[in-house]
Amino acid sequence: MMNVREKLNILPVEDFDEKIDRLRTGMQKSGLDTIVVSDNANRYYLTGRVFNGFIIVTRADVRYFVRRPTHLGGENVYPVRKPESIPEIIDIDALGHVGFELNQSSYALVERLASALGVTDFGNADPVLMAARAVKTPFEIEKIKRSSDCLTSVYGMIPGLFRPGMTDIELQIEIERVTRLKGGLGQFRISGEEMEINMGSVLTGDNADTPSSYDFAMGGAGADPSLPVGADGTIIRPGNTVMVDTNGDFTGYMTDMTRSFACGSVSELARRAHDMSVDICRGIERLARPGVKASDLYNRAIEMVTEAGLADFFMGHRYQAGFIGHGVGIAINELPVLAPRSRDILRLRNVIALEPKFVIPGVGAVGVENTYVVTENGLQRLTEAPEELLPLEE
Amino acid sequence: MMNVREKLNILPVEDFDEKIDRLRTGMQKSGLDTIVVSDNANRYYLTGRVFNGFIIVTRADVRYFVRRPTHLGGENVYPVRKPESIPEIIDIDALGHVGFELNQSSYALVERLASALGVTDFGNADPVLMAARAVKTPFEIEKIKRSSDCLTSVYGMIPGLFRPGMTDIELQIEIERVTRLKGGLGQFRISGEEMEINMGSVLTGDNADTPSSYDFAMGGAGADPSLPVGADGTIIRPGNTVMVDTNGDFTGYMTDMTRSFACGSVSELARRAHDMSVDICRGIERLARPGVKASDLYNRAIEMVTEAGLADFFMGHRYQAGFIGHGVGIAINELPVLAPRSRDILRLRNVIALEPKFVIPGVGAVGVENTYVVTENGLQRLTEAPEELLPLEE
Repeated sequence: MMNVREKLNILPVEDFDEKIDRLRTGMQKSGLDTIVVSDNANRYYLTGRVFNGFIIVTRADVRYFVRRPTHLGGENVYPVRKPESIPEIIDIDALGHVGFELNQSSYALVERLASALGVTDFGNADPVLMAARAVKTPFEIEKIKRSSDCLTSVYGMIPGLFRPGMTDIELQIEIERVTRLKGGLGQFRISGEEMEINMGSVLTGDNADTPSSYDFAMGGAGADPSLPVGADGTIIRPGNTVMVDTNGDFTGYMTDMTRSFACGSVSELARRAHDMSVDICRGIERLARPGVKASDLYNRAIEMVTEAGLADFFMGHRYQAGFIGHGVGIAINELPVLAPRSRDILRLRNVIALEPKFVIPGVGAVGVENTYVVTENGLQRLTEAPEELLPLEE
Repeated sequence: MMNVREKLNILPVEDFDEKIDRLRTGMQKSGLDTIVVSDNANRYYLTGRVFNGFIIVTRADVRYFVRRPTHLGGENVYPVRKPESIPEIIDIDALGHVGFELNQSSYALVERLASALGVTDFGNADPVLMAARAVKTPFEIEKIKRSSDCLTSVYGMIPGLFRPGMTDIELQIEIERVTRLKGGLGQFRISGEEMEINMGSVLTGDNADTPSSYDFAMGGAGADPSLPVGADGTIIRPGNTVMVDTNGDFTGYMTDMTRSFACGSVSELARRAHDMSVDICRGIERLARPGVKASDLYNRAIEMVTEAGLADFFMGHRYQAGFIGHGVGIAINELPVLAPRSRDILRLRNVIALEPKFVIPGVGAVGVENTYVVTENGLQRLTEAPEELLPLEE
């Protein structure tokens, strides 16, 4: 049919089958007969690669319509130049109730696809895709583990990268470099259209208490008003902490880890809050298992923080974020969400990041973030760097 | 009204006024009485900062509805928690024909905004915004100039970063580091939802001829199928060229520059193609001025390349890109587009990048890319690094 030089779908068969089964279960529940995929993260989820084109999943089959690159082929792979060509290849009258990615795709793209496929009344495929992606396959967990191991080795190098007098940005640049040398791809996939970040966040001193416009757990003014998050050029001074939350994408799948460091001697309050963050991780690790409500985990953290008298500093100080954790995978912000009004229930093979963090005015941010797989026996931690407040010195 | 600690709109008054005038002219032409802005690049365009919220521009006024951060204020700035609160603040019956960002906003967001504002029949604000953004203000040109000067100094350091035996990724990492140390923000804003890239592209050897799924001028397999563009770990060998097209965002405004380097002695064909790229820049510089068709510039390049017998290698080899240049500003892909079917006309104070590049099989990519301001007297080049094929050696 075409000059096939490379297979489009490079996923292991069992991985692909599990994902499609899960999608079809979700489609059935939400009354969708067909979903049309055109978001990069979802294309990658279903084929193991990013390409330019569309995937159409019905209850019966999966077809791939490829615009670029043109050398990709395989079973059910059709080259197309535009979505309007799809009806020449498949019977669009048989699609039934169609869902598009209404949260991920632009209004113009959805309108164009709907018109090309002759669909007037359509549903939202994103909740189905997000629910499927929230439960990871063994192949995906392996990728997240590999990313976690690489990022753990990066964190081990951070004390050696510090030089007295450095700014937060200068330290971040050296962390970015070793991350990339260890195989970091530099890609930071975020679901939705609001959030932007470069390779990660390094916060020290009062900058940790600057609210951001983005929905990250921590803020920071950033280096420029065009990207208002993270390091802002503050010199790292004795008495301050440095919180590092840096890009963990080494495999197409992200891991999320934060560690905090002390420059010289820091306040007792900062040390106590840091230890509380580690304690909260331990507390939630004991509570979390399949079937537990995500909101219960949030509430447990709030209880512990309130008991300790640290609520004013939890998840920020001038502005406090309303969640303590989130799913992680191809994107940094997947399901479940660990927030007070979350309706998510923890499921086997969710991968979640817990980030109970504190901002201590005049000192900086403290706390840890860990990424876990939800197993039958509870949480298995993937981010193995030491959790204590490590010293930064010459 | 609120505890105002920081002004939301930090643009110089004359810059803001010029942008709003241009927007209103476009609104009038396209029959829009009101446009609703919620894309980060457009929010930045109209205020000088990225924030979370909405800007509503009518023929009479400009109002800002801010979700986060909550400490921003100023004239016509209203804190809101959700778009549904906007009708409590303004008279939505007076909005007239409303345009949303149909190319930039998700389907779900447009539906939500339309419902919140009681709008049933709406238009597309994106062509108006893109047309306004295509003509830069003096303040914007100054920012692009500053980015260009920083990137020029980065390119001057590249030969000193090379070590024999390096891979393309290793060289890219060192370029990323000096870019960041010179103030590079690491943000790569791209309009639309398809395209992704880390800090830029370094191409050598046969990887330069690997087609990408993205709509960039050049391809490359990338380090992983989750981000299929650019460097793939190829060792830079004598006889190969290295093309560097790296992130030029130092100010919120991007510049776009490419330079090519020769590792040892490279083929006569590669040298000839590189010189042709520089000649095409000179040829187009002579032709381009306000009023000239963008397609004429494209056609002139094709003529020169065909005359020289280099058409098979132009803008790629296995896959050839269908444009030779594009507008640059807050995003790397603005108007005008220099392509055969482009209807764009060059206008005073457009900022455009010209990238007449070649891929030579077995050698790599060659050519240059420059960013220019369109002045009354023609193109003023902003990217001042030397254009010749520079040697990389120990």
